[in-house]
Amino acid sequence: MHEPTESPAPPATPAVLISEVGPRDGLQSVSAVMSTRHKRAWIDALHASGLREIEVGSFVPARMLPQMADVAEIVRHATALPGWTVMALVPNLRGALAALEAGVHKLTVPVSASEAHSLANVRRSRIDMVAVVREIVALRDATAPGVPVEIGMSTAFGCTLQGAVPEDEVVWLAGQLVAAGVDEIGLSDTTGMANPAQVRRLFGRVRAAIGDKTGSAHLHNTRGLGLANCLAAWDVGVRTFDASLGGLGGCPYAPGASGNVVTEDLVFMFEAMGVDTGVDLARLIAARETLRAGLPGEPLYGMVPDAGVPAGFPDRRPGGPERSGQIRTDDRH
Amino acid sequence: MHEPTESPAPPATPAVLISEVGPRDGLQSVSAVMSTRHKRAWIDALHASGLREIEVGSFVPARMLPQMADVAEIVRHATALPGWTVMALVPNLRGALAALEAGVHKLTVPVSASEAHSLANVRRSRIDMVAVVREIVALRDATAPGVPVEIGMSTAFGCTLQGAVPEDEVVWLAGQLVAAGVDEIGLSDTTGMANPAQVRRLFGRVRAAIGDKTGSAHLHNTRGLGLANCLAAWDVGVRTFDASLGGLGGCPYAPGASGNVVTEDLVFMFEAMGVDTGVDLARLIAARETLRAGLPGEPLYGMVPDAGVPAGFPDRRPGGPERSGQIRTDDRH
Repeated sequence: MHEPTESPAPPATPAVLISEVGPRDGLQSVSAVMSTRHKRAWIDALHASGLREIEVGSFVPARMLPQMADVAEIVRHATALPGWTVMALVPNLRGALAALEAGVHKLTVPVSASEAHSLANVRRSRIDMVAVVREIVALRDATAPGVPVEIGMSTAFGCTLQGAVPEDEVVWLAGQLVAAGVDEIGLSDTTGMANPAQVRRLFGRVRAAIGDKTGSAHLHNTRGLGLANCLAAWDVGVRTFDASLGGLGGCPYAPGASGNVVTEDLVFMFEAMGVDTGVDLARLIAARETLRAGLPGEPLYGMVPDAGVPAGFPDRRPGGPERSGQIRTDDRH
Repeated sequence: MHEPTESPAPPATPAVLISEVGPRDGLQSVSAVMSTRHKRAWIDALHASGLREIEVGSFVPARMLPQMADVAEIVRHATALPGWTVMALVPNLRGALAALEAGVHKLTVPVSASEAHSLANVRRSRIDMVAVVREIVALRDATAPGVPVEIGMSTAFGCTLQGAVPEDEVVWLAGQLVAAGVDEIGLSDTTGMANPAQVRRLFGRVRAAIGDKTGSAHLHNTRGLGLANCLAAWDVGVRTFDASLGGLGGCPYAPGASGNVVTEDLVFMFEAMGVDTGVDLARLIAARETLRAGLPGEPLYGMVPDAGVPAGFPDRRPGGPERSGQIRTDDRH
């Protein structure tokens, strides 16, 4: 008789979409090669936490990135799990063909905002990369019209090779890519140079230019500003955030200087603010064990896994002490 | 002939005031006792970096905090250095008397927003602490009318003993303290429970209640949200931020879970945003050596000291590659 009459299911569409990039961005940054079996267990644990989007690998030659040799098999494994979008990175038409054959839900193509970075990284100018993107879009249109093509615009906030990247060039390049037919363009702080004022300004300018084709914020924690920059992006309307379990990936400096924003800390920040992520933080933290098992000895980052959640933090699991509906109110503190 | 005709001096009043709390909040959190000689060298290095405010110690019985046995001598040393405000923490009238005798520029009194924390920490209710504050203000009025009395309101964002702290009680307590005659009230996230939405809401409510008597944001990085919370406070008009060199102080959890916001990372964030702190980041990072020398083996935190500043980051020193005036523009990236 005293059971609550309303027992709300978790909302179908979270207020923010957390896009887990560890299996792609994380693995390609470490020297160890994770076994296919361990990758599967890690991806299963990430799925169980409630994540709705994941980037599972790169379609690049195995001789360049042996970590990605099993990418087609991993795509097939991940796409068999229900209720999430499985992405893969493709640098060129050949990669896109293989990714579509494997059955990815979404393609992501890296394009550098910095001309110097583009030439150094893929030996192509930016405008040549726009031509590559046009080919990928044509392939998609011909063979898999339901698969979105997203651009991750790297070095959008600065470049270690050329220094500052003019904002006008970021906006120009975004316009070129939209004209080439892409569905979404995210901005990446590849080098950990972004600051919150810049994040607000640049996302604002890009949104003014390309509207709702503005995509995810891929921000790094290289100088400790990862979450502050995510907050800044949220403030100007960004609703998709890339992050990596344990901050795996992009650790170019001393120990402690992690690269990617830590998924666990990012989910904690939004949930504590009352912004629904759809992710069960306890299960997400538990997923670290599968990552540890697959990459023994690799340092994992994150403050919330060490500190724990504070008393009163909502437990989203069925039967948890607070109903999931409560997490969305803004006055629970 | 080609020398610039305008050669702006650093602005007299920075856009934000960074209040260094390491010698008080940091030292009282570690078990080691730093020698007076090492404290002096550390404080000298902090002063040389351009910091304009520092909390150098607590006036408490040496048997309770042996780290603070030399606090009067340290106050005399710090106040002999020009151009900054030297503060000390005083928990009661006896401490305030000793601090004023030593010549502090400003008193700070901790008052808990959580009744449970107040009773556990100082064995006084909050309203009894308001009475103590009234005595301290009376002493100040009688003997040192130019010395401001600031409150650091601890557990304002949550309490590990009682859980949530009602915002109405924070606003009520702030009103009681203003009526008792204090000059400023800062809000402290003693337990690392604050989130950016809460920081904006609570500072907004307190400012609506007590106006420009709203003081500093004392935020912790326990769960990685330190800088995001500082950004949130900045967004709603807070202009004084407590921080600690190397994040020294308040490390109640596992290694990596630092307590205080790291001064180096905080200064980097604001300067990168074009918000002047008055602090020379290179000299601030150099000050870590004096801290290491005084507390060998104590872990120091901070991402910017490891990662370095990005290319193009303004050098504020005279003769640096960019004139200090440029740092205030918002379009240099």
